[in-house]
Parts: sequence; structure tokens; C-alpha cells
Amino acid sequence: MRLAIDESAAAQGFSSPNPPVGAVIVSPDGDIVGRGHTQPPGGLHAEVMALRAAGADAVGATAVVTLEPCDHTGRTGPCTAALIDAGITTVCFAVEDPNPAAAGGATTLRSAGLTVVDGVERAAAESGPLRAWLFRQRHGRPLVTVKLASTIDGRIAAPDKTSRWITGPQSRSRVHRQRALLDAIVVGTGTVLADDPALTARTDDGDLRPHQPSRVVMGHRAIPPGARVADGTAPLQHIRSHDPAAVLDALDEALWVLVEGGPSIIGAFLAAGLVDEIDAYLAPMVLGAGAASVDIPQITTLTDAHRFTLTAVDALGDDVLLRLSR
Amino acid sequence: MRLAIDESAAAQGFSSPNPPVGAVIVSPDGDIVGRGHTQPPGGLHAEVMALRAAGADAVGATAVVTLEPCDHTGRTGPCTAALIDAGITTVCFAVEDPNPAAAGGATTLRSAGLTVVDGVERAAAESGPLRAWLFRQRHGRPLVTVKLASTIDGRIAAPDKTSRWITGPQSRSRVHRQRALLDAIVVGTGTVLADDPALTARTDDGDLRPHQPSRVVMGHRAIPPGARVADGTAPLQHIRSHDPAAVLDALDEALWVLVEGGPSIIGAFLAAGLVDEIDAYLAPMVLGAGAASVDIPQITTLTDAHRFTLTAVDALGDDVLLRLSR
Repeated sequence: MRLAIDESAAAQGFSSPNPPVGAVIVSPDGDIVGRGHTQPPGGLHAEVMALRAAGADAVGATAVVTLEPCDHTGRTGPCTAALIDAGITTVCFAVEDPNPAAAGGATTLRSAGLTVVDGVERAAAESGPLRAWLFRQRHGRPLVTVKLASTIDGRIAAPDKTSRWITGPQSRSRVHRQRALLDAIVVGTGTVLADDPALTARTDDGDLRPHQPSRVVMGHRAIPPGARVADGTAPLQHIRSHDPAAVLDALDEALWVLVEGGPSIIGAFLAAGLVDEIDAYLAPMVLGAGAASVDIPQITTLTDAHRFTLTAVDALGDDVLLRLSR
Repeated sequence: MRLAIDESAAAQGFSSPNPPVGAVIVSPDGDIVGRGHTQPPGGLHAEVMALRAAGADAVGATAVVTLEPCDHTGRTGPCTAALIDAGITTVCFAVEDPNPAAAGGATTLRSAGLTVVDGVERAAAESGPLRAWLFRQRHGRPLVTVKLASTIDGRIAAPDKTSRWITGPQSRSRVHRQRALLDAIVVGTGTVLADDPALTARTDDGDLRPHQPSRVVMGHRAIPPGARVADGTAPLQHIRSHDPAAVLDALDEALWVLVEGGPSIIGAFLAAGLVDEIDAYLAPMVLGAGAASVDIPQITTLTDAHRFTLTAVDALGDDVLLRLSR
């Protein structure tokens, strides 16, 4: 199952709005005879990719899949039928499909005489590449992560607006790796006008990564024609609203969204209760002046604070990444 | 030597302005026959305490000491003479005494026929209880630590000034343990007038710890007679200056000073280049409004930032402590 989860990582970002699933076919001798992951929408599911790789070796083999195989005919045929037809005798999966239209796979497989084991490494699969898809199934909206990048005293720029670079290359590299897994990056028109960010996912060498998230700009001001977000290297969506809920509604197929700023946009998502986790990249420096990382004008007293749980701490070069969750 | 360093911790705070030293006497069979640490000024040194504990067992034994034994007669006699007279045959120490008036102990011991081994666990001893004393010997001023306690976005209070408690009980407990090792806590008159802090070192049960640092209030405004810093449980020093260098000069025997705020006082120490390390206690919450943890009005651009190195990350209940050093 750990191999299947690893395999599913290759589908993250590409498979949206479908779940990024991984599958491994294991022969009776314990050999891996096929691996596969979900292809982009309209393409093959993970199970079928793995079965194709296995070919005749699938007869009598075990299929290990991160999500319960689907039982419905959508843009592709049901995976249950493919597994049965290929001669698979045992199916192990990690997470039951919470989507009523696709669920029922386990029952169909058992009815056909296959052995089915569910819940294998469920926690690891739920917190892996499937996480945002499961969140959307359960909550009806994308998983929202906020990125903060500031000094230890919470400043994102000096009084003269200089801000490149507060955090270091390892922090920026992680942001770019994460962007390649996302469906959308949200910023305000103010950030576009002030910083002209590209909002692309690049390698450390500056090359575009294979998957690019949509660039979503919220607010009423116009995006200048020469803005880097309008350069065509990734989709651009301009949503003329300051309401975070309206923005998420407009991203109707997104699984995972990163809110990158500025301070007022981040504050609006927090005030709306629409932030599920915060990645706070902190540089080991003090500015003592300049804009703060979050601006929430309606906060008046300490009990108004938005509280999270610290879930992980990662050293990133000179910086530290604090990961907070609801 | 690890035992001697542990033993020296009991002297930290109490021994100032003398170094907090630990000593262990080891018999030829490897048994610990005596331990001791520096007593308050005018009291006995660590070596003499350990020799007294060992009694006749010191004959033919090894003395393990964190600092080179002193060779001069101050308020007490030279430790070298005590070690020789007790019949010690070998002396191991970690750190050479950088103080010219006290140094020369190793030479005296060798001349008397003892075996002397220096540099044993030097790094561990230098970063242990001796750290602040060594700093003062080398730099001519106390080691200055700044305490920040803020939300993840760098806020220390909400707009209505509510701030109790942003950080949790484990963070506060660590601050109180640290205060008991210090010589002085520095705050501004503004903090005294706004928050009326006690600035004492207490146990989790609220009892006063055996050693209390001096409370140092800097600034020109008067301290109200009823202020908690004036309650007599620890010394109070009011320094009518906003100059951090003048404040440190006035604390002429302090080894280790903690600057606890507010934001302008912390900023003044940073701007003066008089901050050696920062302990940043961060609570996993976002305020988005209210005062920032550090205020440095003269900062204009990012290259003015005060840069440190992240040296440690500690989880403290729900909070995280980031430790930064020069």
C-alpha cells in the first residue's frame, strides 16, 4: 500500500477533479507486476493503468489500490469490471469511496467472488495525495491552505516595500513543489499590481513543472495586460469579488487551493472561516517595521483570534516552516 | 564531566558575578566520592565544596571541574592550593579560565606534580551554565536574550490591549524556569504601567523560586508605588534612560539579562546591536490586528533587517519556541 500511495503522488494536481489514486498489482509470489496512477480527466483510472502494465500477470494476482475501486461508468468504464475481467483474485484498498455515485465497488467485487480487504493503511492514504479530494467530498469545497512568509516578528516587507527575499531558497523551492500539486493559487489584485508575481510552479532551475495550478486573482481592480499572471503559461481567472466563499464557489472543480496573499486576502479567508491550514515560513530575522502578514480589521479582542493546532515543524535552510491545521 | 556540568547548574544565578562551576571527585576505583558547586559570592568555590564532601577519600583521587581551578586569593583562597593539600593527583577541567587574575591554575597544579588534563568536554561546558559568564569575560557586557511571545503573525495583543494569555502554560513555565537562572529582567516603564508584571521566577504552583533576578525598569516615567515590581520580592532597579548600552553599564555585575519588552525596548536593543539571542514563543493563532512584537522606527528597507541564525526549535504544549542566535 505504501507503494500504491507513492504511485498516487504522480497523479496529484493532474487528476483533478478526480481523485489521485495509485494502484499496484502483486503476483502470488509477491512480485510487483504492475503499477499505475489516475490519468488526467477522461483518461484511464489507476487500476486500469496498473492492469495494463501487468498484462497476463494479473491473472490470480492481488490489486492494491489507495481508494475503493469505482463501480460506475463515467468517462471511463467501472474499475470493478476491469479487475474482475483481468482475473484479479484479491483487492486491498485503503479508503472507502465516500461518493455515492462511485461507491459499491467492494460489494460488486465480493459478489464476483474476489477477496476484498479494506482499510489497509487508511490513515496514511487519507493524509496522502487523496487528502484534498476526500476533503472536498466531505465538505463540498476545496481544501484551503494559506501561505505566510514573514520575519520572526510577522513582517512581510520593509516600510519601503522591499520584500525580496525574506525567506530563503529552500522555502521558495518548497512553495514551488507544493504549487505543482495544487489546483489554484489565490491572490488579490493588490498583490498583482504591487509585486507582479508569476504564480507558476517551477523547478530550482527555473523550468516550468509539468502541472501548473490556475492563477486566481480576486478583487475589482483590472489586471494589467502585461502582468505576469496573464502570460498564458497557466490558466488565469479574475474573480471580481472580495468574498472568499464566492471565490471558492467559482472554483467549482478545485480540490486544493493555496491562498498566497496579500494580508487582507488572507485575513478575509480567516474571517470567513475558510482556512483549513496555514504554512508559515519564518525567516530568522527581525524587521520591527513594515506590513504584517495578516490584516483582519474586524478583530478587536483576544478571544476573536483564529486558533489552530501546530502539526509539523520543518527546517528549510535558514528558515523554519510551521504547519498549522484546524 | 557531564556530572560536573549538571552539578554546576545548581549554581547558575546564585553565583553571579562569579562563574557557576561544578566539580566532582572520582576515586581511583571510579566511584564518585564528592560533588560541589559554586556558592553565592563570598562562599566556597565548587572544588572546595566537592573536596569537603569527599573528605579523606580525596587522597589519590581525580577532580573533574568545569572551569580551570583558580590560582588567586580573592574572597576565598586559591582552589589550586585546596586541591594539592587534599591529596588530589589528577585534575581534569573543561574550559581554561580567560580571566588573567584567576588563570594560571593548570600551571600551578602541574608544578606541584599533579596530572592536568584540559579541554575535556569543552564545547558542552561552554554552552552550559558557564555560557553567560564566559560571554561577559570575552565581551565585557552581559549576554542579552530577548523574549518574544506572539501569535504566528507577530501580534502581542489585540487592539483592545487584551494579551493574557497568547502563549500557553508550558511556554510561561519555561520563562519562569529561565528567569531563575538570570541576573536581570529588563522592561520599559510602559510595560510596568500597562501590564503591571511581577517579573518574578515562580514554580508552576506559584511559589517563588530560590533565586530571583533583579527587575530592571528603563525609561523616564515614574514607577507607581503600588506596582508589583516594587513589592520587594526581588531587587528593583529603575534606570532613567532609553539607551540600552547605558542600561547594561548600570548592571555592572550581571552575567545574563533577559529583555522582556515591550516592542520599543526590544527594538532599541536590536538597533543598538545588543541582542545576542532571541527566544520567540509563538502561539498557533492568528490575530490580524494589534501591536507587533518588535518596533524599530528607524528601519526603512529590507537590508536593515536584524539577521540571526535559527539554533533550536522546541515544542511547548500548543506553542513552539524558536531560538535564534547571532
